Amino acid sequence: MTGLLIPDDSGFGPDNLPFGIFSTPELTPRAGVRIGDHVLDLRAVFGDPVFATGSLNAFMSRGPSHWAAVRERLQEVVRAGEVPDGVLHAVTGVRMHLPFEVADYVDFYASEHHAVALGRLFRPNAEPLLPNWKHLPVGYHGRAGTVVVSGTDIVRPSGQRRAPGADNPEFGPSTRLDIEAELGFVVGVPSTGPIRVDDFAEHVFGAVIVNDWSARDIQAWEYVPLGPFLGKSFATSISPWVVPLAALSHARIHPPPQDPLPLPYLRGTQPWGLDVDLEVRWNGERVSRPPYAQMYWTPAQMLAHLTVNGATARTGDLFASGTISGAGEDQCGSFIESTGGGARPITVRGETRTFLEDGDEIVISADAPGPGNSRIGFGEVRGRIVTRA
Amino acid sequence: MTGLLIPDDSGFGPDNLPFGIFSTPELTPRAGVRIGDHVLDLRAVFGDPVFATGSLNAFMSRGPSHWAAVRERLQEVVRAGEVPDGVLHAVTGVRMHLPFEVADYVDFYASEHHAVALGRLFRPNAEPLLPNWKHLPVGYHGRAGTVVVSGTDIVRPSGQRRAPGADNPEFGPSTRLDIEAELGFVVGVPSTGPIRVDDFAEHVFGAVIVNDWSARDIQAWEYVPLGPFLGKSFATSISPWVVPLAALSHARIHPPPQDPLPLPYLRGTQPWGLDVDLEVRWNGERVSRPPYAQMYWTPAQMLAHLTVNGATARTGDLFASGTISGAGEDQCGSFIESTGGGARPITVRGETRTFLEDGDEIVISADAPGPGNSRIGFGEVRGRIVTRA
Repeated sequence: MTGLLIPDDSGFGPDNLPFGIFSTPELTPRAGVRIGDHVLDLRAVFGDPVFATGSLNAFMSRGPSHWAAVRERLQEVVRAGEVPDGVLHAVTGVRMHLPFEVADYVDFYASEHHAVALGRLFRPNAEPLLPNWKHLPVGYHGRAGTVVVSGTDIVRPSGQRRAPGADNPEFGPSTRLDIEAELGFVVGVPSTGPIRVDDFAEHVFGAVIVNDWSARDIQAWEYVPLGPFLGKSFATSISPWVVPLAALSHARIHPPPQDPLPLPYLRGTQPWGLDVDLEVRWNGERVSRPPYAQMYWTPAQMLAHLTVNGATARTGDLFASGTISGAGEDQCGSFIESTGGGARPITVRGETRTFLEDGDEIVISADAPGPGNSRIGFGEVRGRIVTRA
Repeated sequence: MTGLLIPDDSGFGPDNLPFGIFSTPELTPRAGVRIGDHVLDLRAVFGDPVFATGSLNAFMSRGPSHWAAVRERLQEVVRAGEVPDGVLHAVTGVRMHLPFEVADYVDFYASEHHAVALGRLFRPNAEPLLPNWKHLPVGYHGRAGTVVVSGTDIVRPSGQRRAPGADNPEFGPSTRLDIEAELGFVVGVPSTGPIRVDDFAEHVFGAVIVNDWSARDIQAWEYVPLGPFLGKSFATSISPWVVPLAALSHARIHPPPQDPLPLPYLRGTQPWGLDVDLEVRWNGERVSRPPYAQMYWTPAQMLAHLTVNGATARTGDLFASGTISGAGEDQCGSFIESTGGGARPITVRGETRTFLEDGDEIVISADAPGPGNSRIGFGEVRGRIVTRA
């Protein structure tokens, strides 16, 4: 047996227990749970082959009572403080993989501060919010096949963009490469029809941090009338640890008031948002602290809307919140906001920046309140900009 | 041995050989090739377990030289006119399944006639084509998880829509349910980067008919600024037979001239379109004959654009052309066009229609020139509108 030491401030104590897929030089990709600075091999603990498939999908499809039973047993193991020999791996010695096979990927636009800021930039002489924005969580489908795990290099995309005032577009590498700091939610239990607001926890397994990389110049030229396409589809990064919904029970808060009252299918018995604090580091310097607590549309409203037309949901469906921006200047979840569309450069570690340069690295981390004074860590999503060889 | 009789006008002679997934009361879903009015069991002929996986993905991933070898062997078998006992099934006695697992689904907007017609409807006092339209094939991601095989009933979606002149939206079943007659192309060989126009056939396995069902009222309210979402995501139907690209060599034609000349990444050595004729039947009455030959953007340009930003392509990626509409009034691929946005009802089998009523059935079929006077049949995609129980 091995003794378990969990640093007090780790964010990965027994109240968190996030799931991921790891490998070592000796072990093929398999499911693990992060505990402090270690990863617990779930196949080795439970002997269940569902943990050796190389993705969390099969486990996530089993549903909330199974998730709860596994969580309970893991908490017993961790609280007992001892685990069988050979099932713990130092987190520094493992490689993390995409935690689940992404079925469909949907991205919402649920932050009012973000939507207003972009509306002012793109339509300076009009109402910043379009008429539909406060009636429904606006969203669209992204590219599931280019969702990558934290640590994957991001190749600067090329594409068409049109210079201000020019008649014709030109082709080349994006010069306005940006981030979008978001939270994403992962469907475990599929549905054959609408998922009501109150049934969210029957279907959603957990949450990850999302960086929805965005080439603003490509996006601006292409996006009418059918929405973002190549400006987003080159890469979307997610954190490797899926924080179970059960670990976020202490992070539930009242969401901001909604006016007008949304239609009945978007109302729940007890609306809740999440008090998750994000932090964006650009080449190591903290440049923003986006607060998920200020998001206008709740996770349960997003899923209810996504399925209200009868669209089925599958295990592995990922839906993200859209850029998380708060009311403050230091709470922007994208650089197009913090630089006023590139008009107000900022200083990052002594260098001037508007958008991302080659070699720049972005790390987005997040955590949330747990029981007592504890914190629930999401870990981080990391990506460095490179040029295609 | 069993003798093979292929009706002269079947569209499923030895120059076609489309692939699908079928089952019988005795046989689990497996790959088959359609020959005349029969389905040939590929596992039984080749003994290769790749044909027993229940989808074409693994076979499609093997690439063009393998596809060609299988096709050549099948043509020998068919031309010899005799097949081993027990490997042929009457097409009337099998059930057809979704032929492949859809990875990502992208829908383009490649018909100039369609884009102009919708532009005139939605923006009556402006240029019907937006500035980007002739520079790039406009497209967006749809919902892969709701792509269904021909014959699947289509449940009328509910959602938010706002009546003309109203301030607020209401919720209810769509009253402007429409079709979009399209062709879709299926990626077999994945890519890790851009697929050049001239490399199309190295990656694309074949083509299907697509009906991209559209709830125009939901779409009109939701689609700014991020594009169509719930107005489309409830269902997209495809035909069960994937016509191999090799069977469409005689259907290649010069595409319409492109002015302005597109950027270099959208130019190929020998641009080609496809002379595929579609036919739309509404409750059995032919209401339209959309000509694929008139599409502005070519299939190879769509795939080159889709990947030029570095987006990877996966086996099972489906990209569709968008609504196929020709210049003629009887060549519309959607009813919003043929009814002038619902303003000019049409008569269908003695009944008045603008959009689809419950119980209506739409069948879209297609065929293309083969060698000599032969035709290459796509079969059909069929769907009936029902109300959720």
